[in-house]
Amino acid sequence: MNLLLLEPGDFIDENRVQLQGRRLQHMQDVHGVTTGDTLKAGVLNGSMGTARILQLSQTLAELEVSLDKAPPPPLPITLLLALPRPKMLRRVLQTVATMGVKQLYLINSWRVEKSYWQSPFLSEHAIREQLLLGLEQGCDTLLPEVHIRQRFKPFVEDELPGLVAGNMALVAHPSGEMPCPTSVQDNLVLALGPEGGFIDYEIQKFQETGFDAVTLGARILRVETAIPAILGRLFQ
Amino acid sequence: MNLLLLEPGDFIDENRVQLQGRRLQHMQDVHGVTTGDTLKAGVLNGSMGTARILQLSQTLAELEVSLDKAPPPPLPITLLLALPRPKMLRRVLQTVATMGVKQLYLINSWRVEKSYWQSPFLSEHAIREQLLLGLEQGCDTLLPEVHIRQRFKPFVEDELPGLVAGNMALVAHPSGEMPCPTSVQDNLVLALGPEGGFIDYEIQKFQETGFDAVTLGARILRVETAIPAILGRLFQ
Repeated sequence: MNLLLLEPGDFIDENRVQLQGRRLQHMQDVHGVTTGDTLKAGVLNGSMGTARILQLSQTLAELEVSLDKAPPPPLPITLLLALPRPKMLRRVLQTVATMGVKQLYLINSWRVEKSYWQSPFLSEHAIREQLLLGLEQGCDTLLPEVHIRQRFKPFVEDELPGLVAGNMALVAHPSGEMPCPTSVQDNLVLALGPEGGFIDYEIQKFQETGFDAVTLGARILRVETAIPAILGRLFQ
Repeated sequence: MNLLLLEPGDFIDENRVQLQGRRLQHMQDVHGVTTGDTLKAGVLNGSMGTARILQLSQTLAELEVSLDKAPPPPLPITLLLALPRPKMLRRVLQTVATMGVKQLYLINSWRVEKSYWQSPFLSEHAIREQLLLGLEQGCDTLLPEVHIRQRFKPFVEDELPGLVAGNMALVAHPSGEMPCPTSVQDNLVLALGPEGGFIDYEIQKFQETGFDAVTLGARILRVETAIPAILGRLFQ
């Protein structure tokens, strides 16, 4: 928790918040704060700044906030991700939020196991929880939007053309002929496949929609490693 | 397991191996192989190619191997990493091996909790286990060398100058003034700090040894995210 992320419901006054639960415990156990300490803080989908601890007990903290800075700029990317297995999904959601992706589509693919779609980690509440942890890590307040698309063909045929229109579109694929570009400034739509990759039919559908297949090199990365590697490469 | 990684002890003949245990189980449970199937294979610290299943039972597989390709080139980097907490260390070792780092120094820093040095995950056996998983993921055979340096000052003063001599040397630090470079071709020594970063004294010691402090931007990344992000950026 590098940023104390506040929600509108925490405010008891224009510049004053009360905290209980996880964030209070983390401040005490990990940061070891005491009354008078100042923390980096921000309000969800709003400004960032500092929060000073006015009162502190085992069950409640009251803080005075001063929020006047903008959060860091979002990455200009829409990320399409074949639904990872549940345990990895949680880390991926955190990573995506930490790195500044604001539009994430979790999509189906032939090689996504059907059972993954039943995971409780896909509930709105569970997704939000991981995104908040990611924002707290990366020091950002803008909550990513996560869109769940369980049917590949309708998504690619009906919705994807609208997302791609006017943007660069790339699908990462082991047999991609282009190396992945660097120092991208424009809006970009990027598709990452499941373990084992998209199947040929899926790559073809992406290409028909205007995607270029790019390779990340000879090494096969787990999705949780591939995302930071490709984002680190694309945006500089 | 994208590569079946063989060890010299698996060979019963020049081109023939017998497997039991984890790798056999993985081939059967995850890959669902049967007799006659061919897998991507390689021998530890040696060549890569294919392995064809000659015989298969619940307890033993016999395979014929044909290994004539070189593993992918290593990244020209020596990575110095403040020892991460044990759970993260395991993933970090896998990531490092997957991405092609061959020289890893786990070093001390003021903000590394002392208890981390007692972790059973630091045993030679435990480290090797994670590195092998990483090589299997990334399709590589060259085992990284992991060096453990529990005392910061002797390491930096006595050993580091020799590692740095003639190479670019960078330490990632939130207050670094240079952005991290891209498309590096030469040998590079890169130091990554613990959660909370290196302290000023440590940064100063690195700088005295010829390191430049570089920033990765406003967002604070977990070490397991920072490593692929910075490697993806450095090597293109």
